[in-house]
Amino acid sequence: MYVVIIYDVKIDRIDAVRHILKKYLTWVQNSAFEGELTVGKLEELRILVSHVIEKEQDSIIVYTVNNPTWLEKAVWGREKGTTDNVL
Amino acid sequence: MYVVIIYDVKIDRIDAVRHILKKYLTWVQNSAFEGELTVGKLEELRILVSHVIEKEQDSIIVYTVNNPTWLEKAVWGREKGTTDNVL
Repeated sequence: MYVVIIYDVKIDRIDAVRHILKKYLTWVQNSAFEGELTVGKLEELRILVSHVIEKEQDSIIVYTVNNPTWLEKAVWGREKGTTDNVL
Repeated sequence: MYVVIIYDVKIDRIDAVRHILKKYLTWVQNSAFEGELTVGKLEELRILVSHVIEKEQDSIIVYTVNNPTWLEKAVWGREKGTTDNVL
């Protein structure tokens, strides 16, 4: 499945969350990653992230589509995302 | 079509961008809005936003699916989004 993840986590935990996400997905913007993942890998990612975030404060939204061709993407302005820039 | 928009714009322009986006979509997270829009309304939104952003510096990613049921959404941690909190 194709996955887009956007996160809004407290600054103390941003590096830890990014560190996990970049093992599974490609950085596309300040607070967003995307990529192809199996259901099993997404669950693995969810578990790793759940150990790092504070569930009462942090929020991570996970959008998934079963078929990547269903999801169209456009960029207005600058195209930022490459995994090179993130860390 | 169903639209998810994530933005990474310079702080000086965030209020202006949010002000436009919240007329068309629902705020879901710090830097993300989503909702149902026609192609025409999305184009209208693109034009309004293009007058506000600096194309060399700011980045807005627009994901669309033609059928909203194709896009699944999960939230890890806190569910933040209501239009009440944003401004």
